Amino acid sequence: MSSKEPDDCGFNAALQAIGGKWKPSLLWALHLRPHRFAELRRLLPGISEKVLAQQLRRMEADGLVNRHDYGEVPPRVEYSITPLGLSLNDAVTAMSKWGKQHESWKARQGAPV
Amino acid sequence: MSSKEPDDCGFNAALQAIGGKWKPSLLWALHLRPHRFAELRRLLPGISEKVLAQQLRRMEADGLVNRHDYGEVPPRVEYSITPLGLSLNDAVTAMSKWGKQHESWKARQGAPV
Repeated sequence: MSSKEPDDCGFNAALQAIGGKWKPSLLWALHLRPHRFAELRRLLPGISEKVLAQQLRRMEADGLVNRHDYGEVPPRVEYSITPLGLSLNDAVTAMSKWGKQHESWKARQGAPV
Repeated sequence: MSSKEPDDCGFNAALQAIGGKWKPSLLWALHLRPHRFAELRRLLPGISEKVLAQQLRRMEADGLVNRHDYGEVPPRVEYSITPLGLSLNDAVTAMSKWGKQHESWKARQGAPV
């Protein structure tokens, strides 16, 4: 594997972009259709306004999400997924599918993990 | 998203199985071909014997890796990837590809993140 480990590197970069409690769910919601801030908040019971705003800003900085301000009064702001976000959502979905499959496997083993 | 978030759940289960510094590289090496303990250690400079043994035991308990003891003297023990491990490696590879793509994207943005 020489000086550069082939798969760790990019894997950790991806984890950094999607890590944490809320980002996978936000990305999932936005891959279905664009959402307004208040809609996203309703989808994630327990998230505070501050944390949701922070997560969305990070995802915007990482190129996963577009923020569109319609410049209307009262304000109308919509979040949508970018092509980069969509490709991450695909990869995350593959991981999630595996995780669900693995949970069934562990249940079959009777492992209390 | 009701009480159960659709994609977080399985995603975290997958992360638990593959998380940490070494497991993605171990899985990658074993998806290429079976390896003996000493070979794996050489592939991962910096890993201690104790940590490597621990990681392999966990991956075995998670159904990712098979340990085959040939019962020879001197001992010959080989580790190979299971079908479950192979499917996780595919998902991890998709994430890693995305991570590499994202690093290029960030470089193009000139973001010092």
